[in-house]
Amino acid sequence: MCSLESDTAMAPKITVELLRLLRQAMKNGKYVSQPIQAYIVPSGDAHQSEYIAPCDCRREFICGFNGSAGTAIVTEHHAAMWTDGRYFLQASQQMDSNWTLMKMGLKETPSQEDWLISILPENSKVGVDPWIIAADQWKNMSKALASAGHSLVAVQDNLIDAVWVDRPARPSTKLITLGLEYTGLSWQDKIIALRAKMTERKVTWFVATALDEIAWLFNLRGSDIEYNPVFFAYAIVGMNNIRLFVDQKRLTEPAVRNHLQLDSPSKPELSIQTSPYESIYTELQVICASLGSKDKVWICDKASCALTQVIPKIHRSPIPYTPLCLAKAVKNTTEIQGMKMAHIKDAVALCELFAWLEKEIPKGTVTEISAADKAEEFRSQQKHFVGLSFPTISSVGPNGAIIHYRPLPETNRTLSLNEVYLIDSGAQYSDGTTDVTRTMHFGTPSAFVKECFTYVLKGHIAVSAAVFPNGTKGHLLDSFARAALWESGLDYLHGTGHGVGCFLNVHEGPCGISYKTFADEPLEAGMIVSDEPGYYEDGSFGIRLENVVLVVPAKPKYNYRNRGSLTFEPLTLVPIQVKMMNTEMLTPKERDWVNEYHMKCREMVGAELESQGLKEALEWLIRETQPIV
Amino acid sequence: MCSLESDTAMAPKITVELLRLLRQAMKNGKYVSQPIQAYIVPSGDAHQSEYIAPCDCRREFICGFNGSAGTAIVTEHHAAMWTDGRYFLQASQQMDSNWTLMKMGLKETPSQEDWLISILPENSKVGVDPWIIAADQWKNMSKALASAGHSLVAVQDNLIDAVWVDRPARPSTKLITLGLEYTGLSWQDKIIALRAKMTERKVTWFVATALDEIAWLFNLRGSDIEYNPVFFAYAIVGMNNIRLFVDQKRLTEPAVRNHLQLDSPSKPELSIQTSPYESIYTELQVICASLGSKDKVWICDKASCALTQVIPKIHRSPIPYTPLCLAKAVKNTTEIQGMKMAHIKDAVALCELFAWLEKEIPKGTVTEISAADKAEEFRSQQKHFVGLSFPTISSVGPNGAIIHYRPLPETNRTLSLNEVYLIDSGAQYSDGTTDVTRTMHFGTPSAFVKECFTYVLKGHIAVSAAVFPNGTKGHLLDSFARAALWESGLDYLHGTGHGVGCFLNVHEGPCGISYKTFADEPLEAGMIVSDEPGYYEDGSFGIRLENVVLVVPAKPKYNYRNRGSLTFEPLTLVPIQVKMMNTEMLTPKERDWVNEYHMKCREMVGAELESQGLKEALEWLIRETQPIV
Repeated sequence: MCSLESDTAMAPKITVELLRLLRQAMKNGKYVSQPIQAYIVPSGDAHQSEYIAPCDCRREFICGFNGSAGTAIVTEHHAAMWTDGRYFLQASQQMDSNWTLMKMGLKETPSQEDWLISILPENSKVGVDPWIIAADQWKNMSKALASAGHSLVAVQDNLIDAVWVDRPARPSTKLITLGLEYTGLSWQDKIIALRAKMTERKVTWFVATALDEIAWLFNLRGSDIEYNPVFFAYAIVGMNNIRLFVDQKRLTEPAVRNHLQLDSPSKPELSIQTSPYESIYTELQVICASLGSKDKVWICDKASCALTQVIPKIHRSPIPYTPLCLAKAVKNTTEIQGMKMAHIKDAVALCELFAWLEKEIPKGTVTEISAADKAEEFRSQQKHFVGLSFPTISSVGPNGAIIHYRPLPETNRTLSLNEVYLIDSGAQYSDGTTDVTRTMHFGTPSAFVKECFTYVLKGHIAVSAAVFPNGTKGHLLDSFARAALWESGLDYLHGTGHGVGCFLNVHEGPCGISYKTFADEPLEAGMIVSDEPGYYEDGSFGIRLENVVLVVPAKPKYNYRNRGSLTFEPLTLVPIQVKMMNTEMLTPKERDWVNEYHMKCREMVGAELESQGLKEALEWLIRETQPIV
Repeated sequence: MCSLESDTAMAPKITVELLRLLRQAMKNGKYVSQPIQAYIVPSGDAHQSEYIAPCDCRREFICGFNGSAGTAIVTEHHAAMWTDGRYFLQASQQMDSNWTLMKMGLKETPSQEDWLISILPENSKVGVDPWIIAADQWKNMSKALASAGHSLVAVQDNLIDAVWVDRPARPSTKLITLGLEYTGLSWQDKIIALRAKMTERKVTWFVATALDEIAWLFNLRGSDIEYNPVFFAYAIVGMNNIRLFVDQKRLTEPAVRNHLQLDSPSKPELSIQTSPYESIYTELQVICASLGSKDKVWICDKASCALTQVIPKIHRSPIPYTPLCLAKAVKNTTEIQGMKMAHIKDAVALCELFAWLEKEIPKGTVTEISAADKAEEFRSQQKHFVGLSFPTISSVGPNGAIIHYRPLPETNRTLSLNEVYLIDSGAQYSDGTTDVTRTMHFGTPSAFVKECFTYVLKGHIAVSAAVFPNGTKGHLLDSFARAALWESGLDYLHGTGHGVGCFLNVHEGPCGISYKTFADEPLEAGMIVSDEPGYYEDGSFGIRLENVVLVVPAKPKYNYRNRGSLTFEPLTLVPIQVKMMNTEMLTPKERDWVNEYHMKCREMVGAELESQGLKEALEWLIRETQPIV
């Protein structure tokens, strides 16, 4: 899937009273030493998570819009919310008339800074919760406001929380410990590797704020945030210290205490000192007070402004990607093995689903929602299933053209023999995370649909089969996915691929395949990304073809400057519907790719279907993987 | 050509005495209020020109290295020079043992900042001439030094000039006026268009510092810098003022006075006030002293630090590309017509050259230098020839693998039937600028050479024939040029294309085709770039295939979101040697492209050869453009 969102409610939220309360709070001496003229409500949490817990859905609470990206700003007389093209329609439906929708990416839409400058009285104070704004965003906003005579101020008490009477509590779910059979590397070895990087770069402390990095480092998982097996925590690692900041109640389980060696550390420098989640701020202050003049502290430049500013500027060493982010992205042999297994199981579930759909659709009883539920049911029967990795996008006909569609009772369409069906779904298994999109037709697709599908397939293959030198950044591959569409004047308005975690977040950095960034890290053998070009015909149908692929060494004929080459190996092993292809448009190489891919599906998934005794799904698989000529 | 350089002298320059004098100057109260501990010598001039006049070759003067890119830094005990991979060999040969070569791009090479910080005593002052360091470079260097307790200081008198006793004078060549038949747009209309942009962006003054932008704006040309038809000048444009800063002696010619309407301006707001070149600094100060509180001054962020800092920060509006740079890049109908004519004439000259080479090479008397001279001779016989647009790269066998090779007596090889010949050359005609590379074999190329050539050809065609949406940046096309090479494990270590001026610099922004930048501006119909993939086998041969191509609208089958599509039309019309191709490796589409291209060469260039009565060259053209099957 190419991004996320939570439930899409269609009736606008009534916000008159909420805005009145918020504006009161903006002048209330209890929260602010001086009244503020504007208050910014970003969409993230204190860890800059992409998915957030209900207690952190503050922007949704204040304006009603619940898409994944958006920033609300409230002033004395205005309330405005910025979001991007994916969400224009949804936001306009979810917000009442007190709110102005700011359509990002349109020429006439002012930036938040420009808008604030255009409407604020002179010398205004603009407030924001420093915990939920990233340090780099704070810097940019602060600079822009200062240039116009205003100032950005940190409001320690969150003003949305102040007016949110029934705000849910921060989750504190049970922690799961992962052994070497899942992780391939003990947390102790990960600490040692991290310290080696710190020594190499002459850094004395490292502050971890991203939840998936902390989960990965300690080989722990939680379920604090839906779809993301993470838990709320911070960590600080020094050359002789390990500090873990987490709700202390979670550490009473013997399995967890044992895993973290809390009661009997093997070595003093591998002893973990635990503290309450909230104490990170004061404890980091204590550490910073004792820094030597040359000591450097690593923190991600996307970490919260609040935490970043605890570290005195001369000691701060901000980095775009932390060493954990980079280490986590390159999967080890055990993780790769786990991801392969997870994808085979996931393919089993999808074969079952598609075989079932083929039988059921003609009856007219399958809807987008019931199909998504059925997919979850099949997946949940697979070993080590934990949950979904994101909300299933299950869409029929015109709904497929809404890139981030999620079926709701009021939009729910019935699957039929006449429309294109797109399903983008994935799961968390304790051995791996999956994310796959297939677009199918259960009747007869039109020539135009087949033509578009084939362009998308060509793009998918162009990326998947690409051979490229070691050190190549993913963004250099993005155009390969588009060339066939471009040649016919078509395109899709999203990136081509994102990093995928191993029993972790389905979206992770620092690699990806997109025209939108230049700051991605080079692809390396062991990295795992998605390959998901698409085409969307508004009001009619949507096509997307997504595999998760593993970066592997390639062995081409030559080896220029001994740089070595890379290519991709598909981990996703679900047949691509031949009925949707105009096979005459494929080159011999593309045809070979499809046939080889299908042979691999048949072999790997077929064996698993057989061993699970799933005959109907196996028959479907065999039928769908007949070679094309 | 993909970059430039001047003559390559192979004996190192003796610099002991020069360095002693420079180090004295660094402590001399005549030049510096306090001694400086390091002095930076960038390679540019006050206009950040890529090619520079002899009087500005300060880095070459102090260290001996005369490549196009490099920065020298001298401290009390060290002298170091940073350059990139193109020049490692050349720099090591040209510099004596007083200098340390800093190989940029290698992991172990420190940045200039890190190196300075590692060797300077505490609280050091690092000096630089603020006129030849760009504002953005100053900012970065200054910040880095400050973080380590040092400071970057502007030394107004250039210390190299202080020790350079026989420094040449700044050139002041005759100005050439270009009428509407060459420019398609009067300078008055260009001023009006510029002012419209200024109004749109609420800018009251624009400072032009790039020489090609000033030449373009006023429809004037000069010959102050070899290969670049520009002249030393600055310009400042306000809503009612036009200021031109140029050596006043150049304005005595009646043709120039008349062209600029110096004695009888048509309208007051189109009256040009001229001032001496050097007075830009004080005159800009005067203008800035009179700025209203909301007035903004546009200046390129690559302009000199000296000039940028004249503008108070609150009035400064730095831009990566000026409106002149953007307007100049999109050629109008007259310019396109001129460029087409120039390329036909250029092709005529090259057809003559290749026909002549075919006859002469077997005699064993043609060398890299004599072939380059012959190319210039043929070009100089064409109408409106002004000069070369860069030093000809004429290289045989292993010399071809040196990307920026230029033949010198001591490296000069004889063309033969046994080695690959690469010629990258171009000219300035008053109707247009050319730049073309052809790689040929006059005997029988090996299978490996043909294989590599064919990969390069595939890459060239992939870019040239690419269809892509309006708004696409050139860097998104770079990988198309490499895909065929990558698939076989090969690559080339330079960009794929650069913008080309119209009777202006052969390298110009803001567009290009390279993996190295993300800051290029989107391609637009009317822009002109080069398409020049290559392959270099060290010690053996070099292959490059370069056409100059025009961005034109494409009309594919569909038109997604009404964005429109673009593609390229080759302006260069010189046959691509079929003998070098392994035609079996070409797809039918690629074969069609080659045949269509050759038909166009035959048609357009053939007609011109015929009308010029150049029979042998015409015969050669006909022979070399036989269709392949």
